[in-house]
Amino acid sequence: MRLLVVNANTSDIVTEKVAAQARASASAGTEVVAVTGTFGGRVIGTRTEQAVGEHSAVALLARHAPGFDAVVIAVSYDTGLRAAREMLTIPVVGMTEAGLLTACMLGGRIGVVTFGRRVRPMYEELVAGYGLSTRVAGWRTLESTAAYQRGAHDELDAELVAAANDLVERDGAETVLLTGAVMAGVPRRLQAQVPVPLVDGIDCAVRQAELLHRLGSPKPRTGSYALPSPRESVNLDDPLARLLRDGPTP
Amino acid sequence: MRLLVVNANTSDIVTEKVAAQARASASAGTEVVAVTGTFGGRVIGTRTEQAVGEHSAVALLARHAPGFDAVVIAVSYDTGLRAAREMLTIPVVGMTEAGLLTACMLGGRIGVVTFGRRVRPMYEELVAGYGLSTRVAGWRTLESTAAYQRGAHDELDAELVAAANDLVERDGAETVLLTGAVMAGVPRRLQAQVPVPLVDGIDCAVRQAELLHRLGSPKPRTGSYALPSPRESVNLDDPLARLLRDGPTP
Amino acid sequence: MRLLVVNANTSDIVTEKVAAQARASASAGTEVVAVTGTFGGRVIGTRTEQAVGEHSAVALLARHAPGFDAVVIAVSYDTGLRAAREMLTIPVVGMTEAGLLTACMLGGRIGVVTFGRRVRPMYEELVAGYGLSTRVAGWRTLESTAAYQRGAHDELDAELVAAANDLVERDGAETVLLTGAVMAGVPRRLQAQVPVPLVDGIDCAVRQAELLHRLGSPKPRTGSYALPSPRESVNLDDPLARLLRDGPTP
Amino acid sequence: MRLLVVNANTSDIVTEKVAAQARASASAGTEVVAVTGTFGGRVIGTRTEQAVGEHSAVALLARHAPGFDAVVIAVSYDTGLRAAREMLTIPVVGMTEAGLLTACMLGGRIGVVTFGRRVRPMYEELVAGYGLSTRVAGWRTLESTAAYQRGAHDELDAELVAAANDLVERDGAETVLLTGAVMAGVPRRLQAQVPVPLVDGIDCAVRQAELLHRLGSPKPRTGSYALPSPRESVNLDDPLARLLRDGPTP
Amino acid sequence: MRLLVVNANTSDIVTEKVAAQARASASAGTEVVAVTGTFGGRVIGTRTEQAVGEHSAVALLARHAPGFDAVVIAVSYDTGLRAAREMLTIPVVGMTEAGLLTACMLGGRIGVVTFGRRVRPMYEELVAGYGLSTRVAGWRTLESTAAYQRGAHDELDAELVAAANDLVERDGAETVLLTGAVMAGVPRRLQAQVPVPLVDGIDCAVRQAELLHRLGSPKPRTGSYALPSPRESVNLDDPLARLLRDGPTP
Amino acid sequence: MRLLVVNANTSDIVTEKVAAQARASASAGTEVVAVTGTFGGRVIGTRTEQAVGEHSAVALLARHAPGFDAVVIAVSYDTGLRAAREMLTIPVVGMTEAGLLTACMLGGRIGVVTFGRRVRPMYEELVAGYGLSTRVAGWRTLESTAAYQRGAHDELDAELVAAANDLVERDGAETVLLTGAVMAGVPRRLQAQVPVPLVDGIDCAVRQAELLHRLGSPKPRTGSYALPSPRESVNLDDPLARLLRDGPTP
Repeated sequence: MRLLVVNANTSDIVTEKVAAQARASASAGTEVVAVTGTFGGRVIGTRTEQAVGEHSAVALLARHAPGFDAVVIAVSYDTGLRAAREMLTIPVVGMTEAGLLTACMLGGRIGVVTFGRRVRPMYEELVAGYGLSTRVAGWRTLESTAAYQRGAHDELDAELVAAANDLVERDGAETVLLTGAVMAGVPRRLQAQVPVPLVDGIDCAVRQAELLHRLGSPKPRTGSYALPSPRESVNLDDPLARLLRDGPTP
Repeated sequence: MRLLVVNANTSDIVTEKVAAQARASASAGTEVVAVTGTFGGRVIGTRTEQAVGEHSAVALLARHAPGFDAVVIAVSYDTGLRAAREMLTIPVVGMTEAGLLTACMLGGRIGVVTFGRRVRPMYEELVAGYGLSTRVAGWRTLESTAAYQRGAHDELDAELVAAANDLVERDGAETVLLTGAVMAGVPRRLQAQVPVPLVDGIDCAVRQAELLHRLGSPKPRTGSYALPSPRESVNLDDPLARLLRDGPTP
Repeated sequence: MRLLVVNANTSDIVTEKVAAQARASASAGTEVVAVTGTFGGRVIGTRTEQAVGEHSAVALLARHAPGFDAVVIAVSYDTGLRAAREMLTIPVVGMTEAGLLTACMLGGRIGVVTFGRRVRPMYEELVAGYGLSTRVAGWRTLESTAAYQRGAHDELDAELVAAANDLVERDGAETVLLTGAVMAGVPRRLQAQVPVPLVDGIDCAVRQAELLHRLGSPKPRTGSYALPSPRESVNLDDPLARLLRDGPTP
Repeated sequence: MRLLVVNANTSDIVTEKVAAQARASASAGTEVVAVTGTFGGRVIGTRTEQAVGEHSAVALLARHAPGFDAVVIAVSYDTGLRAAREMLTIPVVGMTEAGLLTACMLGGRIGVVTFGRRVRPMYEELVAGYGLSTRVAGWRTLESTAAYQRGAHDELDAELVAAANDLVERDGAETVLLTGAVMAGVPRRLQAQVPVPLVDGIDCAVRQAELLHRLGSPKPRTGSYALPSPRESVNLDDPLARLLRDGPTP
Repeated sequence: MRLLVVNANTSDIVTEKVAAQARASASAGTEVVAVTGTFGGRVIGTRTEQAVGEHSAVALLARHAPGFDAVVIAVSYDTGLRAAREMLTIPVVGMTEAGLLTACMLGGRIGVVTFGRRVRPMYEELVAGYGLSTRVAGWRTLESTAAYQRGAHDELDAELVAAANDLVERDGAETVLLTGAVMAGVPRRLQAQVPVPLVDGIDCAVRQAELLHRLGSPKPRTGSYALPSPRESVNLDDPLARLLRDGPTP
Repeated sequence: MRLLVVNANTSDIVTEKVAAQARASASAGTEVVAVTGTFGGRVIGTRTEQAVGEHSAVALLARHAPGFDAVVIAVSYDTGLRAAREMLTIPVVGMTEAGLLTACMLGGRIGVVTFGRRVRPMYEELVAGYGLSTRVAGWRTLESTAAYQRGAHDELDAELVAAANDLVERDGAETVLLTGAVMAGVPRRLQAQVPVPLVDGIDCAVRQAELLHRLGSPKPRTGSYALPSPRESVNLDDPLARLLRDGPTP
């Protein structure tokens, strides 16, 4: 199968990290292609960049999704997820959604680590939007931006381990999700230092996308995820305008 | 004061209706300017158009907000609301948010009328995102699209009245919100036929925007609604790129 | 318009503070009249006084409301609010309700500061009764009673600022509501020392009452806020007995 | 033991019905005394009467509670319950609270029958205030006022049975609570016609009050149910003023 | 009346403690018989032992319940409670359920003390299953196993008092429930050192079982607690197989 | 990999249906072994059988799990799920849990079809226990037992299709879960007649079990899903007693 990984951010470093983890997670026989946003914020970290990112994600999908079998949204706000699920006929999985739902099957309540206090409410809103607030044991927020640089990050690693262990110790978390596309691959590296499963959104999302592809559920023919009737639009780039007007190319 | 009414849709008919009601609702001394989206769907009615609309709303705001004292989001999905509240230093009110919160002060639970079953989940998600699900008595969905044509709409009016009365009678609604920017002005016209207050999102939003302007709460200096530090972006139109980089012009 | 501010407490000092803030908040052209309870506790601070205060509030309203255009309940338990909304045909706003709902439009979750651990459950019950528990980021309780004395309160001010900043820092509050009628006017004085909006219940309530008056929603003709059919009563003072029997005088 | 049954209504017919059921429910050795409100509505059926009733209930208790071992609040809005629990050192049980909590121990979700659509929101608010909304399977509202007349009520009985059976059949109720003090004794009479337990609030409340008396939990010394320090008041009748000032007489 | 106390654990020491408290709590005229599990864990403290305990409880009940008037489940996970309520025609009460519901009638939110962090999620799930999560003020977990030894436990007592007081002080608990069958009798001993009621699950359960017996609610004839039609089974011990096939002996 | 499918029921017909679907769902290279309970109810359909089934499931697992890589719980009450997750070091997935969580990734709210009104509360409790109640759009209950006979079931099929479509039409379900192990394979057969995805718990569970196996999350070393220290037990069959004492054989 062919899996499209969509990073609505406009910086390649995150796409690279995500793509590397996606390839590591994918089954033999899954071809992974990762694309990066062409407009908007470098790294979505504000509500405004998230608003632009919603458009960026659907524009990327309109252009690139034809010929793919499933999509992973590789921004940890699951930017564009619901729109993508509506406009495409193939499965679409968000990395944070997939991380949370997979963690549910590991058992117990989930600790969540986020980066930056300014974005924590955005994650809380995201989790609440999935109806999963009661599954969260607690939150920890780190302020480090080291993950966006290349190279080793010993100090950040130590902070992550401490945050995860504190969620276990004080909040009773039985799994810990490290949010952030830039965290792709980190859980596996730090797992030995934390006594409960560390969950990697990209790792889960790639596998869930494969699962949904093989499951083969049909596209809904009614409701908010059915294909809309033709929609007229203005000043959108060609692939997106065509998608809204004609629906998806298989 | 100067009030900017932002319609991220790209069709003028809704802007006209909204602007007319906004002027009717505004206090003497409030100048109302309404702007229409320059790209995206004609009328947001799908998740994909909503994703584009998020960008459309912030692009409109980046261009037009300077010099205004407050903003009303005139799409009933409150498209762009949270981003606008972050990126601007003036109050921003969503029409559905304002309708719901104002209805709370009229007392009791709220019946909600939406247009089109495909968008009802989007409204349910919106209300849940405000933490107000328990304040909703029930929902009714009409399929008519008559409201988007000019002229009288007797049949639609009858359906609206019936839906509102049914919410009162069977679900115990003590107020009824008619969602949809295109409903601007309709509640007042139909009020006499319904025994509980009919709530008009634009009417409430304009008044709440005036209220917040006069209240004069300061812009938060921390948290998810504070101005971000300068953000680098790619391929955005000038005003938005500048806003992300330099923050808002007063 | 004429605005009645109802303090079901029986001590004038709170009424004075409330009336001063109400006049400061009111628009030009709004006449503010504040009345004080004639029976019951000096300052409602127990469940028993609150029970008496419910009666006190409706008795005050029965006597004073005729001729007014809107009412503000100036006890921070919103004492008598629901009854007042039922028995009168003019808008009625509670100071804590108005503070919370207005804070919602400033964005994010709300920190709440209360006075005295014995009353904190009463506030928690109040917030839950409005369906707004999930909008609260956290609570802080101060034990000072200094606010009830005249004069400057430097120590109390310092405690308030510390509590508000702690709500922001540790609980992620994006606005902070200072409960208590006696806090009227304090948020504005301390605002500069807190990085998110401080919300003043009286300030909000006066403005929301004006808004609702101008909005002009009709009195419900059915449901729990409609005027009841004539009710027979025993041993109530004349205005209240008459109100129950004959309904409100315009 | 001596059990005080407090009806904050001012009509004796309800007190008589309640007292008869209370005596039927009480253990041998329990002396039941029922008192009726001296001011306020004949039968609390509006929010305004409920506000007055809160005062009426505490006034009755201040006068009559000395010498009793426990109290049952015999108005189905549990009028005055929280205040009574604070001001007295003996157990206090509300009839609707006791009905709901006892029903929980019978298993499954509870159907609730109320009288009059105008008061149904008041019951919903009451149940929500106990944190028990998720335990309710559904609601039915009857408009009959026959129960307030003396004599047989065949038509009402048939409506009650139909409502209860409909709650079982369509909403999956596994018990049914008939609210309303005036329903005291009715569940037993109609039980044979309904396939799940019919719950009588007075019946449960009397038994729970006896249970709490024998359980002998101490009066809290802190929190919102501890005795307050002396409270100054104005224009209250002597027993209540004294209670606020001096605390309860044993 | 005859009251059966069912301990699905297989160690007598807990049964003894529970039986002693049950006899102390029971009314004159109530005969208490306590039975211990014949297979499974010594003391249920894992999810696996709880799974076995569910069977153990119903096997004990099938064998011993005939001739009794009510049942108390004396394992603090309320092991077998819902099954017992279904399969028997007499009232069945769980010790933790009874403790929580009784605490509700004492007023305010409940602090909960549990033993062992590994089981705390099991208690949280139990409380959530009763729909009572919002009534819990907070949790404290002790690691001591001293309670399972005979003799005095001064150190444990000190820890319990500290935990209870901390729940009161920091979390605003207005009652405190000590979970664990082995805690039977302890609340009474430590009550003087805590300023709010300490709740003993066994104490409450015995009294609630007596109450339900006297209340005399009929066995439901429909729903999930009605007697099933005859059920065929395999390899169960005789009394249980017979119960499933023939229903309960009176 | 080797996948163990555990049916705690004691009738082979359900095991056969489940095993057939499990093999159809499994990847190439997955060996599926299905085992049937050796004691307890033929088909779990009461709370008592469910209580026995909890033991039956863990007894089966103690005997059969060694040598397997993952487990699917093939009773739709997810009987024994939490215990299995604790006692084994390999992933364990419940069929209803997996169905619900997978449905979440298809988007929107889930309609649930159950068999028999007596068990519907058991499903509601299960869903609530996963924290997913708000993701459910509505419920439908069929009374047919035809599925337990071999052969075609045209009438039942028609009822299932009607129930699913009604959930879509009236409750806005965007996916529909057919509960019941006996429904394994049915969703695929009826899919064409329903406009939204029909979800098959076994189909999802097998795929999720494979996914979790490949994901390779470590066994927690703390919390309620960690391996317990050695537990002493009484009168359990050898494999289970050994498991409790010595932990799992790899």
